[in-house]
Amino acid sequence: MDSNTLTSISSFYPPQRTLMGPGPSEIHPRVFSAMGRPTIGYLDPVFVKMMDELKELLRYAFQTSNALTFPVSGPGSVSMEMCFVNMVSPGDKVIVCRNGVFGARMIENVQRCGGTAIVVEDAMGSPVDPNKVEEAFRNNPEAKILAFVHAETSTGVASDAKTLAEIAHRYDAYTIVDTVTSLAGIPVLVDEWGVDAVYSGSQKCLSCTPGLSPITFSDRVVEYVKSRKTPVQSWFMDITLLLGYWGDTTRTYHHTAPTNALYSLHEALVMLREEGLEAAWARHQRNHKALRAGLETLGLNFLVEEPYRLPQMNAVHVMPGLDEAEVRRRLLAEFNIEIGAGLGTLAGKIWRFGIMGYSCKMENVMLCLCALESMFDDMGAKIEIGAAEAAAYHAYAAHPTRGKGMRAVA
Amino acid sequence: MDSNTLTSISSFYPPQRTLMGPGPSEIHPRVFSAMGRPTIGYLDPVFVKMMDELKELLRYAFQTSNALTFPVSGPGSVSMEMCFVNMVSPGDKVIVCRNGVFGARMIENVQRCGGTAIVVEDAMGSPVDPNKVEEAFRNNPEAKILAFVHAETSTGVASDAKTLAEIAHRYDAYTIVDTVTSLAGIPVLVDEWGVDAVYSGSQKCLSCTPGLSPITFSDRVVEYVKSRKTPVQSWFMDITLLLGYWGDTTRTYHHTAPTNALYSLHEALVMLREEGLEAAWARHQRNHKALRAGLETLGLNFLVEEPYRLPQMNAVHVMPGLDEAEVRRRLLAEFNIEIGAGLGTLAGKIWRFGIMGYSCKMENVMLCLCALESMFDDMGAKIEIGAAEAAAYHAYAAHPTRGKGMRAVA
Repeated sequence: MDSNTLTSISSFYPPQRTLMGPGPSEIHPRVFSAMGRPTIGYLDPVFVKMMDELKELLRYAFQTSNALTFPVSGPGSVSMEMCFVNMVSPGDKVIVCRNGVFGARMIENVQRCGGTAIVVEDAMGSPVDPNKVEEAFRNNPEAKILAFVHAETSTGVASDAKTLAEIAHRYDAYTIVDTVTSLAGIPVLVDEWGVDAVYSGSQKCLSCTPGLSPITFSDRVVEYVKSRKTPVQSWFMDITLLLGYWGDTTRTYHHTAPTNALYSLHEALVMLREEGLEAAWARHQRNHKALRAGLETLGLNFLVEEPYRLPQMNAVHVMPGLDEAEVRRRLLAEFNIEIGAGLGTLAGKIWRFGIMGYSCKMENVMLCLCALESMFDDMGAKIEIGAAEAAAYHAYAAHPTRGKGMRAVA
Repeated sequence: MDSNTLTSISSFYPPQRTLMGPGPSEIHPRVFSAMGRPTIGYLDPVFVKMMDELKELLRYAFQTSNALTFPVSGPGSVSMEMCFVNMVSPGDKVIVCRNGVFGARMIENVQRCGGTAIVVEDAMGSPVDPNKVEEAFRNNPEAKILAFVHAETSTGVASDAKTLAEIAHRYDAYTIVDTVTSLAGIPVLVDEWGVDAVYSGSQKCLSCTPGLSPITFSDRVVEYVKSRKTPVQSWFMDITLLLGYWGDTTRTYHHTAPTNALYSLHEALVMLREEGLEAAWARHQRNHKALRAGLETLGLNFLVEEPYRLPQMNAVHVMPGLDEAEVRRRLLAEFNIEIGAGLGTLAGKIWRFGIMGYSCKMENVMLCLCALESMFDDMGAKIEIGAAEAAAYHAYAAHPTRGKGMRAVA
């Protein structure tokens, strides 16, 4: 240890950023306020009641009546792994759709559970092709699970979860669905679609502090896991143990819950219920239309074809002639705005503009367009001053829900 | 979903409790304040600098210069599992010491990694017996790892980590050490002891919000894991992937870090550095002496023999004739004080009084003694009014560090 370095470390004061990257999104003051309330014990009766409310609120967010619906004490990667370690036994075949970074991570998970991944491949930026999934099942009718990402954060593409789930049903397979970026931003209808294991993240459209991941399991998956012949390879992620903690009847010590993070998730979900899911979806659409009009007016082209675009995650090709990283660096340094870079094969080729949860508000859209315009102008790109802002406002004004929630949660 | 239930859920306001259970411990206002600072991106250069500081502060807490020292984005159970999944390959023999609940959990972890656990058994409340460990190694010289709990939260017993590590060294074995309850409460000297994989929790003597677990790995373990023939069974816990995120040179996306929880850990560690490790250890000793004098005056007997008692976790036998659960229920309901119950075979037989971190202060000791005295009196136990408080104060006054830190961090 270098004691000079050590004594030079003092309290940390982060800057106030406008967060328009792939997450975390901005957090409403009510959610911060909830997070700072007194810590209490994880078996305190008052805490246990709050846990029950959390489960109920998450059932609303997921549109499900699944009994086993709770927030995992870890990021979305833990929830993803929780699905695979419980549902995949050595030797199992799993059809995994890869059209981005998170599909690739699913394949890794299958392999580490001793399963075989049958990979359905689509280009980054394209949705999962249902015909390819159908073909994969035809060639592998014994496949037990279909796993796919509903909303690929790495590219901003939405896949048709309902259609993909129907194919899985025809082949009597379970489904694992990543809704990290979709939940509360576009419809996620767990019961209507009949999907089995669905997880999300706290820090995207729920606008809560990062570190938790809501998850829901259908009853048939719970029964299936209980009847496994081989033990689940992870102790922490074994849902048969977690049932004792988050289940309906017992409250057995499993791990120390992240108390204050759970307070903040509770508040974020109460706010979602107050706004209403439909209104939240409309808000994301409305601000997406405005952002899109502005970005296109600036000469930026979307990576994803129109019908498959996620309103909350807007990936555009980098402006030809401009330095991709320099634009992001200057946005952060000069305007306090964070946007996302490309991942994997898209590194250096795209920018990602997230408008998720509390970050999804007209002031962010407008600030971002002003900043880009000012910078592009400065860097010598040919643009018409003020046109992007005007286009964004026109798109906003033309939206049937304009004026709704512009002030409250924008 | 029951929409009536749903709409009845409003913001959550927890009571202000005095936390004297097994954790979480109370949280200093400075730490809460840090937690509520603006969320920023996990690849923001300002955040990356804070991560570097966190690593340095944790090296101080662990008294180590290990490069791979960082806070895991999950509770202590995840850190425990992280040690085992990285270091145990199928077929490996691991000597595991069980003298409480957390030793038992280690055995489960070994088995789920496909390893064989050689169990060294000691009674709950007794420390790990070094002679038994020596014997286990004699009978299993090929054992690769020795795993033990330094401070058993379930009983309040400390084991002699230095001596146990020396035995492991003689047999050229790695060590995995659980310091969840010991770190910052009693000396944890990672480099001096030469232990290899050591994890803790944020919510005990560090007095930070629950949900993070500091961990440190020796360089030789990192090299060993890199050279594994079989892949680590967990994607999330694979330290070769985490090196890309928490390592010294690169900063590759792995998962979204729990930003605000990390702010609060940073602040808690800055406060620990300001107080100084030695002063923190002395504070735990001082308040333990006071609490102990008071509890014994009330007629309560310690579970653990004197030389092995953890100052921060005081387990006593339940007062004969009193209803164990009723005492805890009334302490919570009437005095807002949380204490811990017994776990496993000790359920219903002991009470556990935690004085960890910011909960380790004279006002908590005194309040707790007053509350117990008042209740015991009410329940018909024969006690001398005021004697426990007087005894506690005498013990406090006799301590060489009295008056130091009584106001600041008590």
